[in-house]
Amino acid sequence: MSTSTSALAIENQMMSENGVQQVGLLNGVEDSYAGIIMNMEEPCESEAFAFSLRASILQWKQQGKRAIWIKLPIQLVNLVEPSVKEGFRYHHAEPDYLMLVNWISDSTNTIPANASHRVGIGAFVVNENREVLVVQENNGTFKGKGVWKFPTGVVNEQSGKLKKRQGQSHKSFFTKSDLFFVCMLRPLTFDIQKQDTEIEAAQWMPFNEYAAQPFVQKHDAFSSVANVCLTKLETGYVGFSPIPRTTSSGKTSYLYYNSKDLNKP
Amino acid sequence: MSTSTSALAIENQMMSENGVQQVGLLNGVEDSYAGIIMNMEEPCESEAFAFSLRASILQWKQQGKRAIWIKLPIQLVNLVEPSVKEGFRYHHAEPDYLMLVNWISDSTNTIPANASHRVGIGAFVVNENREVLVVQENNGTFKGKGVWKFPTGVVNEQSGKLKKRQGQSHKSFFTKSDLFFVCMLRPLTFDIQKQDTEIEAAQWMPFNEYAAQPFVQKHDAFSSVANVCLTKLETGYVGFSPIPRTTSSGKTSYLYYNSKDLNKP
Repeated sequence: MSTSTSALAIENQMMSENGVQQVGLLNGVEDSYAGIIMNMEEPCESEAFAFSLRASILQWKQQGKRAIWIKLPIQLVNLVEPSVKEGFRYHHAEPDYLMLVNWISDSTNTIPANASHRVGIGAFVVNENREVLVVQENNGTFKGKGVWKFPTGVVNEQSGKLKKRQGQSHKSFFTKSDLFFVCMLRPLTFDIQKQDTEIEAAQWMPFNEYAAQPFVQKHDAFSSVANVCLTKLETGYVGFSPIPRTTSSGKTSYLYYNSKDLNKP
Repeated sequence: MSTSTSALAIENQMMSENGVQQVGLLNGVEDSYAGIIMNMEEPCESEAFAFSLRASILQWKQQGKRAIWIKLPIQLVNLVEPSVKEGFRYHHAEPDYLMLVNWISDSTNTIPANASHRVGIGAFVVNENREVLVVQENNGTFKGKGVWKFPTGVVNEQSGKLKKRQGQSHKSFFTKSDLFFVCMLRPLTFDIQKQDTEIEAAQWMPFNEYAAQPFVQKHDAFSSVANVCLTKLETGYVGFSPIPRTTSSGKTSYLYYNSKDLNKP
């Protein structure tokens, strides 16, 4: 693919030297991995873009560049096909843009990985009467089965808020892995504010009644969580606690560790 | 967008009834969230696809469907633009395919989240002489700075193997979050097999010498890891251990918890 691209670009540049056609090179920003990032923003006619892309790739190859990235907002969807025809592959997508990449070097491909995991969170909330906050859901695997489960959700990356978790059926076309974290929490109030579109019913349920449900007994994942939380209530199980810190770039990140063991005398 | 789509589809179906043109409906598989998944595999002319898509969406709307998914292998890149013009947005992409989705219902959009996190792993390997396995890298932030760090990588989802971690500079166009796990490991051998394209040098380094590096002292994340590992060596810090289990679908997954506290008498 890369050979034919170069050949076309040379031909195209020769045309330009003969004054037949002027080919503008595309603008890109260099990264620290011998790469070029093109952040396309202005509308562009597909064929003109393809010509410029070929000429630009030739130049970047000569400069020893290795990876060429194109970020295309969805408004510029007409440039997806010409990019793929010039040897680009998809890297990742969000609702409003597509990122493509083309490894133009003969060296080993070291294109960084796309996001690989979906992160789910469960909240195991126990009040001082040893009751667990449980819900029944409007959708998904457990709908209409009378199962009371602790609230779960996926991380909504735009807002940082939790979104109710969609079930397993979408797994069939996601190749991503799931990481699921359970947090044990203490409530600030006994009042329950139900989210009506996703939650059918919510209540406080005695811990033993929760744990005795056949659905909890049958599934290792749920019975283990119940075991861990019971151990914590009764004999002081120690999990990981978040320790906030400020990174050199001024953002907050969290270290999670067994702070009891770390701080013991 | 959805209104004009329906109007066009109706017009198109009327043409079909007059025998002017036959519009084939597209095939999709139903999911358990009132959705349709179209797994496009055969080459298709862009305009014919657009006609069929419009007619199909009209029918699915009438059937009360909510989310329409199109999985397009990169060979069918010509169908990306017509899909977007019919109201589809990008959902996620891998090198060889693009997933698009169109929420055609008036109800609240509950399209499940894309993968949200990149997962990194660090291996803190300490031998019985209290020496740490450290490396210097060929690329990235620490290249040429004389820093000896413990080996790190990102999860390569295709193979499950670890890939060397690319640095922070790509963050500028990734909106994803990073989760980073550090595993403390004991070596099976003192021999070091260096991976030459990514690792400049590798050696065993006394723990105190590793921890005394200005780079470790200066960064909370690295000094905390060193602290945790030192506590583990000296006084028995307890982290999380993986407990393998088989899911109901026959796959292996892992539960991670403080197994010492869980199993104490």
